[in-house]
Amino acid sequence: MTESHIAEKTGSRETETAILEAARNLLAEGGLDALSMRAVASQVGLSATAIYHWFEGKEDLVDRVVLHGFRRSEAYMWKAIEELPAGSMDRVAALGEAYIRFALENREYFKIIFAIQTPAPRHIDDVPGQGGYRVLRQCVVEAMDAGNIRRTDPDVVVLFLWSLVHGLVTIFMACDPKEMLAETGCCDDLDGKDLTIGLFARFRDLVRGGLEPEEGMGGGGDA
Amino acid sequence: MTESHIAEKTGSRETETAILEAARNLLAEGGLDALSMRAVASQVGLSATAIYHWFEGKEDLVDRVVLHGFRRSEAYMWKAIEELPAGSMDRVAALGEAYIRFALENREYFKIIFAIQTPAPRHIDDVPGQGGYRVLRQCVVEAMDAGNIRRTDPDVVVLFLWSLVHGLVTIFMACDPKEMLAETGCCDDLDGKDLTIGLFARFRDLVRGGLEPEEGMGGGGDA
Repeated sequence: MTESHIAEKTGSRETETAILEAARNLLAEGGLDALSMRAVASQVGLSATAIYHWFEGKEDLVDRVVLHGFRRSEAYMWKAIEELPAGSMDRVAALGEAYIRFALENREYFKIIFAIQTPAPRHIDDVPGQGGYRVLRQCVVEAMDAGNIRRTDPDVVVLFLWSLVHGLVTIFMACDPKEMLAETGCCDDLDGKDLTIGLFARFRDLVRGGLEPEEGMGGGGDA
Repeated sequence: MTESHIAEKTGSRETETAILEAARNLLAEGGLDALSMRAVASQVGLSATAIYHWFEGKEDLVDRVVLHGFRRSEAYMWKAIEELPAGSMDRVAALGEAYIRFALENREYFKIIFAIQTPAPRHIDDVPGQGGYRVLRQCVVEAMDAGNIRRTDPDVVVLFLWSLVHGLVTIFMACDPKEMLAETGCCDDLDGKDLTIGLFARFRDLVRGGLEPEEGMGGGGDA
């Protein structure tokens, strides 16, 4: 049986998915250097030449893997807010939690989107759905209109919230948070994804009310 | 001239530094796979065997590179606060800015500390100075004592602030922020490091006061 027969038999769509999965795993394990049409081909049992039937080349393959990752993250986010009232802070918080879940349940995609070195930083406008940026922006604007977020540049608020949750996830991927939190006894009973989400929940008060002490409550200074 | 003569001539200290720099560059370019005693040796003009005079093996080499990176980041942070009053929010903000400058002026170290895959997440207690964690924690506790930060778990506040600045830096390393900020016209005249620091400055109000509208100011709702 020739390769084109195999492709026909298994279905073009499934072959494409298999190729993308192989590319995703190679990228996540060894970065751009580990990815070649030949390496992908050998993983899915086709010749390198056959891969060109579905993908123009290595760059196209990387772009499509990244695109898949972005689409997946966006799906997590839309799903997280669908039952929650528009304009609520619950929607904003749910998006943060969905982002954490996406990152920790899809580490390969997350790593490829943010850690694979591209020649230049990615342009957000090139990404359909802007990788969740648009969802979060919409929820922030709605929350401003509903009087739940003070009026200021929505994009500054979006970047503030995105930075907060992205930083939390990436720090916890690199460092074990248990020790940092040992003294406070915070989230003692939690682990892994639940710990990250638990700590994110603790951030919620700080995000809403800020670090400043409430009027008249003061600090615990010498006075 | 034998290798040991070369080492003696150039000085043990300089050779060690040259080895660490070569290891840092190999790690930053190709990750753990790109690093071998042989590759490092060839870059500094010694044999692989000679490298063992300074380093026990690959793992030791990685640990020492990471350690150097952490020491460097901590130095940025201590320097940033030395002229600022203890307990002030200026100190807290200065630490954030120092972290951004460290990351963008030392991309190799930053990438190695946070992107090199380790078998398990790094333990913060294994890091002398805890990579700046201790500096930031000290400033947060002092600011609480001075009444500038409301009383709550200091470690939660430290992780909140660290996440915010770490996320901002890593997002901007992967995505071009210009387009996201195009609509707001925010930081139009800034670029690169200045843009990241400029946006971080915009976060300062949100960090202090939170997202909630001030009492009586309300939102722009339908009412």
